[in-house]
Amino acid sequence: MKFARFKYDNEVHSGVVTVDGVKVLRGDIFRDWEYTGTVLQLEQLELLAPIVPNNIIGIGANYVSKKDELPDRLPEIPVFFFKPASSIIGPGENIIIPDSVNEVKFESELAVVIGKETKNISTENVLDHIFGYTIGNDVTAPQFFHSHGHWTVGKSFDTFTPLGPFIETALDPDEVYVKAEVNGEEKQNSPTDLMIVPLKNMISYLSSVMTLQPGDVILTGSPVGADFVKDKDTVECKIDEIGTLKNTTVKTSVSIGS
Amino acid sequence: MKFARFKYDNEVHSGVVTVDGVKVLRGDIFRDWEYTGTVLQLEQLELLAPIVPNNIIGIGANYVSKKDELPDRLPEIPVFFFKPASSIIGPGENIIIPDSVNEVKFESELAVVIGKETKNISTENVLDHIFGYTIGNDVTAPQFFHSHGHWTVGKSFDTFTPLGPFIETALDPDEVYVKAEVNGEEKQNSPTDLMIVPLKNMISYLSSVMTLQPGDVILTGSPVGADFVKDKDTVECKIDEIGTLKNTTVKTSVSIGS
Repeated sequence: MKFARFKYDNEVHSGVVTVDGVKVLRGDIFRDWEYTGTVLQLEQLELLAPIVPNNIIGIGANYVSKKDELPDRLPEIPVFFFKPASSIIGPGENIIIPDSVNEVKFESELAVVIGKETKNISTENVLDHIFGYTIGNDVTAPQFFHSHGHWTVGKSFDTFTPLGPFIETALDPDEVYVKAEVNGEEKQNSPTDLMIVPLKNMISYLSSVMTLQPGDVILTGSPVGADFVKDKDTVECKIDEIGTLKNTTVKTSVSIGS
Repeated sequence: MKFARFKYDNEVHSGVVTVDGVKVLRGDIFRDWEYTGTVLQLEQLELLAPIVPNNIIGIGANYVSKKDELPDRLPEIPVFFFKPASSIIGPGENIIIPDSVNEVKFESELAVVIGKETKNISTENVLDHIFGYTIGNDVTAPQFFHSHGHWTVGKSFDTFTPLGPFIETALDPDEVYVKAEVNGEEKQNSPTDLMIVPLKNMISYLSSVMTLQPGDVILTGSPVGADFVKDKDTVECKIDEIGTLKNTTVKTSVSIGS
């Protein structure tokens, strides 16, 4: 099932994308909802990020380029980082590059949407706690990484987390390819079994540290090929089973710091 | 004005702490509220963290021990980090030390509560965007810092962000001392003018990166003297004008990772 969030007639709605159109729903997609009976066509509406999460949690440098590069054992402490909800934009919105940033990196990623409260779960139980999957672009300005390894500023700018276009609930996360194109040229295309920390281990580990909540989003890392983009580049992050998340970069004249 | 959030008769309320008692209110403390007419006594109610923020943003290593140690210029990129809302506890609640963590550090901090949407503001305008101030204990397990400088895991455990006891709106942040006692012994006691990145610069900088929202909490760093605690230590973080945030550490047998 493909869930969408969208603006129609100046109001925000959710719906399910079907061959007949987008069936509008009312209620909370994580708990209790029902169809309103209204069916819209995708062309009639403005897609928004499919979720406004409490937490967006990313993992750093999590793909190898081929299977025989996978390490023998998992890292003892994975490199996790948070991105603020204020950095989220939807499909089609512009990624704003502030004036003092020279270039930004796109990073196409499989994004997990947590479905229920999750604490101390084993890898075997992780899939039961996942509501669905969307695509995230973990836009990054490495120029604003602190020299001692803190990535917070470089990953937190407004517009730096495009999400969408839909949340797909019927997806096997072990069977998809994470892809990206810039201005039509392929830059990333890797199966998820090239993840260093596999999805189930990542979420089991996280749940041993913190209580995950319905709607939390976990960005599972970006395949090799993430690259820099400048003004007016169009980035398409793609997972065939979910859709294409397309955003264009726009450079502004607002500077950073004071 | 001192705002409290509390549980009474199994329901969560907010109120204003006065000499006559806690005057219960209804509405949103950031926008529109009114007194209900009910007045309770502090002894009757269970104080909760005074706010459940969208974002908790901390700053690393932000105090010197005396004024002549202050650097000539501000760091180019401050060390910011996020803590998840799932790590918040209120006054009196236990700080849970997971079994695989040997010891944790307490860090008493002046915590700023943002009052309105804040983007690209100058240092002169920062105070207009602040709703009030509370106390935060930025509990930290340095053992779970990644060797490449990522602090996320070590700062994100459930119960690792005690907040409270109140939000004080009438406070001059330049005129307070940030203190901590462990089991009655003074460990921290510094005026806020020993901050390396001053509060106004910190928030102005953050606002040039991301849009801050009402209720966002900024932990402004901990004075020298932050130290390790083990099982059954009582930490009191204190700012005289706000109150005392008291929590006790409890070690559990739940381990980290999978």
